[in-house]
Amino acid sequence: MTTVREPLRVAIVGLGTVGCGVVDLLRRNAELLAQRTGRPIAIAAVSARDRYKARSVAVDQLPWVEDPRALVHDPSIDVVCELVGGVEGIARELVTRALQAGKAVVTANKALLAVHGAELAALAESRGAALAFEAAVAGGIPIVKALREGLAANRVNRVYGILNGTSNYILTQMRESGREFAAVLAEAQALGYAEADPSFDVDGIDAAHKLALLAALAFGGRPRFDAIHIEGIRHVAPIDIAYADELGYRIKLLGVARLTEHGLEQRLHPCMVPKDAPIAQVEGVLNGVVAECGDAGPMVFEGRGAGAGPTASAVVADLIDLARGNRVPVFGVPADALADPPIAPMSAHRGSYYIRLMVVDRPGVLAEIAAVLRDHEVSIEALIQRGRNPGQAVPIVLTSHETSEAAMTAALARIGRLASVLETPRMIRIERL
Amino acid sequence: MTTVREPLRVAIVGLGTVGCGVVDLLRRNAELLAQRTGRPIAIAAVSARDRYKARSVAVDQLPWVEDPRALVHDPSIDVVCELVGGVEGIARELVTRALQAGKAVVTANKALLAVHGAELAALAESRGAALAFEAAVAGGIPIVKALREGLAANRVNRVYGILNGTSNYILTQMRESGREFAAVLAEAQALGYAEADPSFDVDGIDAAHKLALLAALAFGGRPRFDAIHIEGIRHVAPIDIAYADELGYRIKLLGVARLTEHGLEQRLHPCMVPKDAPIAQVEGVLNGVVAECGDAGPMVFEGRGAGAGPTASAVVADLIDLARGNRVPVFGVPADALADPPIAPMSAHRGSYYIRLMVVDRPGVLAEIAAVLRDHEVSIEALIQRGRNPGQAVPIVLTSHETSEAAMTAALARIGRLASVLETPRMIRIERL
Repeated sequence: MTTVREPLRVAIVGLGTVGCGVVDLLRRNAELLAQRTGRPIAIAAVSARDRYKARSVAVDQLPWVEDPRALVHDPSIDVVCELVGGVEGIARELVTRALQAGKAVVTANKALLAVHGAELAALAESRGAALAFEAAVAGGIPIVKALREGLAANRVNRVYGILNGTSNYILTQMRESGREFAAVLAEAQALGYAEADPSFDVDGIDAAHKLALLAALAFGGRPRFDAIHIEGIRHVAPIDIAYADELGYRIKLLGVARLTEHGLEQRLHPCMVPKDAPIAQVEGVLNGVVAECGDAGPMVFEGRGAGAGPTASAVVADLIDLARGNRVPVFGVPADALADPPIAPMSAHRGSYYIRLMVVDRPGVLAEIAAVLRDHEVSIEALIQRGRNPGQAVPIVLTSHETSEAAMTAALARIGRLASVLETPRMIRIERL
Repeated sequence: MTTVREPLRVAIVGLGTVGCGVVDLLRRNAELLAQRTGRPIAIAAVSARDRYKARSVAVDQLPWVEDPRALVHDPSIDVVCELVGGVEGIARELVTRALQAGKAVVTANKALLAVHGAELAALAESRGAALAFEAAVAGGIPIVKALREGLAANRVNRVYGILNGTSNYILTQMRESGREFAAVLAEAQALGYAEADPSFDVDGIDAAHKLALLAALAFGGRPRFDAIHIEGIRHVAPIDIAYADELGYRIKLLGVARLTEHGLEQRLHPCMVPKDAPIAQVEGVLNGVVAECGDAGPMVFEGRGAGAGPTASAVVADLIDLARGNRVPVFGVPADALADPPIAPMSAHRGSYYIRLMVVDRPGVLAEIAAVLRDHEVSIEALIQRGRNPGQAVPIVLTSHETSEAAMTAALARIGRLASVLETPRMIRIERL
């Protein structure tokens, strides 16, 4: 619709997997992109730590910039693509300076935005600069655009998702093979699906960064990574996966955000979800997000959440918006109108729970446990005690009706101290979908 | 971002389920929408056939316009929402006149755009007017925006979906209950899930309108509803659903579009899809769309495809874009650049097939059938012949390896003429996902 034909001039900073993917995509689909946006998208500069490193794409014909900070005041650059990563350091400095200079920024940096998002959004809007981050959440799935635009007519009741492909791959493998976490992790590392230091993925940090952004978009608030309750998947045991199956559930590392009477609740932890729920079908390295919209109902999005192709697709989608001249407030509402609701304490969470206990098989044990639960007003929904082994250890599994986290935590502390209970009780939250 | 505070002034034409849903949503979420767009979205006029009809929302406080054509030259109107429906008549006239007058148009009218879309897109762009239609495809699922913007960095290889909730509901009920099509349809009609005249839904017309739009968006071409191969679900029998289950499939009314060496292939017909494919999990009245993207991989979208809430959500999403001042070419590329590829004839389709035959149970029948298939170079993948009934009718079910529609059609015509084959052979295409 616009007749402008000058290229959109993009500087790409960071030439790892994602950066090289963006270079490759912009080259291969150059004609298509020009047709769709009405103007070429040109790579006007590239920058990375090591110019001579072996890369999946040739960059020697592209204008190399040694210090990316020099791009910020370069009038021949319209957009800085920050693909370096990290909460602080060069990523934060570059994005801040570029926005200060009024340059549009496209980034895949979930950590940066989860922590400094509100401040950067305010800066961007004060300078009239765009700050786009489709690639920061769920890779190629256009969920940022969906929440900020396509579903923006709705109040969102709850948003939840599988936001880390590595941990979902591990849980899927554990379920399919019956193996322990450590064995599956080691295999995933050998196959290159998990990092040598897997903490970001399996301890839930990466997914929590994305959850902070999803919650900000869904509820028009400041991203509050610091206020997320985070538990990873290291404690998920094959026996729990087997019991989940028997009870009609699958175990997923789920991020969940909703506004409750106590404020913003953000949780990232292993969850049991009903087997037939769409999110339970999201397997292997895939990501999935469900936005429960007031008027439109639940909307399900599923696709590849990481890797060069999907992430580059999202980065370039942001460039397409910029090339077309389209703009939306960073988190869907103007930065100065971003809500800052109270944070609901995890103790106020209400939900159902799965509990697994190792107990001595002798008369009266169950009565003791039931009495503790009753004292804390936790009511039992289902109970599995199978196999007898008089005087020896046997597992007891139970699920509760809806109760509060505070009540469950207190009950489990008491149960854990019972003489007949041999191991620390295992608890996994059940998410009603 | 923008400091414009004047309202976006919207005229709503058509006050059926969707029109009333839009009025309701704009009222209930007025504050939220103003916050998200930076300006109010105001209902400046409403129009419908019967002013005094009982409606789900009160419209007596809204400016009533008897002849919606009067809106077209009303300077107090920014956007005309056409929610009347129909390929011709007032819908086409109103949209055409509004665009001619340079007014933005938002419509939920899949039929109009599937047939006249290219012409209307050209008109809109020639007058600098927006023409938006998120609500025309898959109700509340923001798939138009996803294809036109969020996934626009990719070449799409194939797009397919379950695009009609009524027929998906009927197929789901048939599978779950084992009942015949006619019985389930009658029940759906009694429950209000199917129209008294169900043809649009069960014969695939409605879904084909949506497929034409999906294909246009995915491949940047003119919508070609006239070139879609359409078959409905009236011939799907409980026995085929049971065999599908046994073979690892579910039967879905699927719309599929792709660019082949023969040109644009668009098909809307019952398909067998692998049970564990995401699209197979889309059950009941839900809709689902999968876009197979070159770089991002397959992206799955699932949600409510009809009804006041979801459709209004999509209409208002378009209004939000307009209020924010964002614009994209109607079908993702400028109208004068829309491709018009040759149409691949259905006979050139290649795929696998499910065949069910009722034959006389006597020696040599299978050899006869196998010989015909061999003559047409159709190779058998699996065969089920179960139960004996010498001299009487028994079913034979077989699936083929990939072959051409032309070969399969010719083979089935010959098989149908064999003396030992008692009924017209039933064929259902298998979609490899």
